[in-house]
Amino acid sequence: MSQKTIGTLYGVGVGPGDPKLMTLRAVEVLRGVSVVFAASSPKNGYSLALNTAQGHIPPEVEVVRLPFPMTDSHELLAQAWRANAGAVAQALEQGRDAAFITIGDPLTYSTYGYLLRTLRDMGCQAPVVTVPGVTAYHAAAASLNTPLVESRQSLAVISGVADPAEIANLAAISDNIVIMKAYRQFDQIVEAVEALPEKWSLAAASQVSLAEEKATTEAGALKGQKQHYLTLVIAKRRPAPQAD
Amino acid sequence: MSQKTIGTLYGVGVGPGDPKLMTLRAVEVLRGVSVVFAASSPKNGYSLALNTAQGHIPPEVEVVRLPFPMTDSHELLAQAWRANAGAVAQALEQGRDAAFITIGDPLTYSTYGYLLRTLRDMGCQAPVVTVPGVTAYHAAAASLNTPLVESRQSLAVISGVADPAEIANLAAISDNIVIMKAYRQFDQIVEAVEALPEKWSLAAASQVSLAEEKATTEAGALKGQKQHYLTLVIAKRRPAPQAD
Repeated sequence: MSQKTIGTLYGVGVGPGDPKLMTLRAVEVLRGVSVVFAASSPKNGYSLALNTAQGHIPPEVEVVRLPFPMTDSHELLAQAWRANAGAVAQALEQGRDAAFITIGDPLTYSTYGYLLRTLRDMGCQAPVVTVPGVTAYHAAAASLNTPLVESRQSLAVISGVADPAEIANLAAISDNIVIMKAYRQFDQIVEAVEALPEKWSLAAASQVSLAEEKATTEAGALKGQKQHYLTLVIAKRRPAPQAD
Repeated sequence: MSQKTIGTLYGVGVGPGDPKLMTLRAVEVLRGVSVVFAASSPKNGYSLALNTAQGHIPPEVEVVRLPFPMTDSHELLAQAWRANAGAVAQALEQGRDAAFITIGDPLTYSTYGYLLRTLRDMGCQAPVVTVPGVTAYHAAAASLNTPLVESRQSLAVISGVADPAEIANLAAISDNIVIMKAYRQFDQIVEAVEALPEKWSLAAASQVSLAEEKATTEAGALKGQKQHYLTLVIAKRRPAPQAD
């Protein structure tokens, strides 16, 4: 009679890219598991999360790249999810503790949420421990030494912009807006903020916390240029002139 | 002729409270400075940030508690800010590197933004380096193993609620709402979410990442109870039933 205990799945956020912005807990988990999974490019196996965490993964720990196709096809993506979640489930069912690493925070615009859902749908009963991480937008605010949100203000976070009108809707009730993945519609985003009735400041940051980082509080000056994939924008309502 | 170099100010987020959720960079900074400043209760000197970081502050580093009065008086607060920023400026002008530590992320609802502003107003020219941290709301989502925001959704973060109508306004354009400091108006917040036209899930977490942490995906059941000061609520729009 073989008594096998199921392994624990650790969802680990490794922060925005600088290995030093990993938490002590993330490092501890990577030293304690038997296998580390990371979503990667199907073309070249590249994974920013793996690049970030590499120095903290002991050589005896197996590293498995999970390829995700760059496609809009729900069918192909669902297929990839089932295959990749299957690989994770198999390791756990063999009694191995496994980490699934993601850039930033694992529950903020991350593939980890889908992994959890797919595992649950597959009937996987493994215990799950999630280790939160520092997001790129917190790191961008730090690079700029500018408050992200304070006092009685509100903060809105969106991933890309489907329609520039969305900016106006958010601006109506939020004092600060973070737009992740702003590379594709950068000019439209800048123009939508410039068109707001009140004055807003507009900062942009790309490859935050990496050696290649660029950050500016004058995002408008970048209009017309090609933006890096890892670009985000922080728009802040400017305080009204002191009238009282 | 004495040539004195001005020190560097490090604004360091120490994460939600579990010392293991500090970043490697935060630990490194605390080991490299000569003085650590922390906002604290004027009554008993208590500082959650200091409690969190204590184990990573070498004994030879000076620790200075900066008392902030619990008051709504702008005059008293401004006075405290000038005195406390003055203490930080003095250390920097003596050429000492100083860390100002805050719980969570230093630029998210934190006193650090005010410190920077006050130092600037005082003419302090010290270089500033900000180290981002893990926020309580990311740690709460991790404890609940529940996505905070994914795919094309948006996230709104507010600190307390002035008017429950604010919840309805945010719900009109956000798929996920985090309400920090939800202890005082907890019941009104729950009732405002329950009154929304669509179905929303409602999680609550208090003292996230600490030994005393409580987290539940059924925040409604906590109505009528006294909530801890460190309580936050995460409201999520429930997906519509699969009609297609």
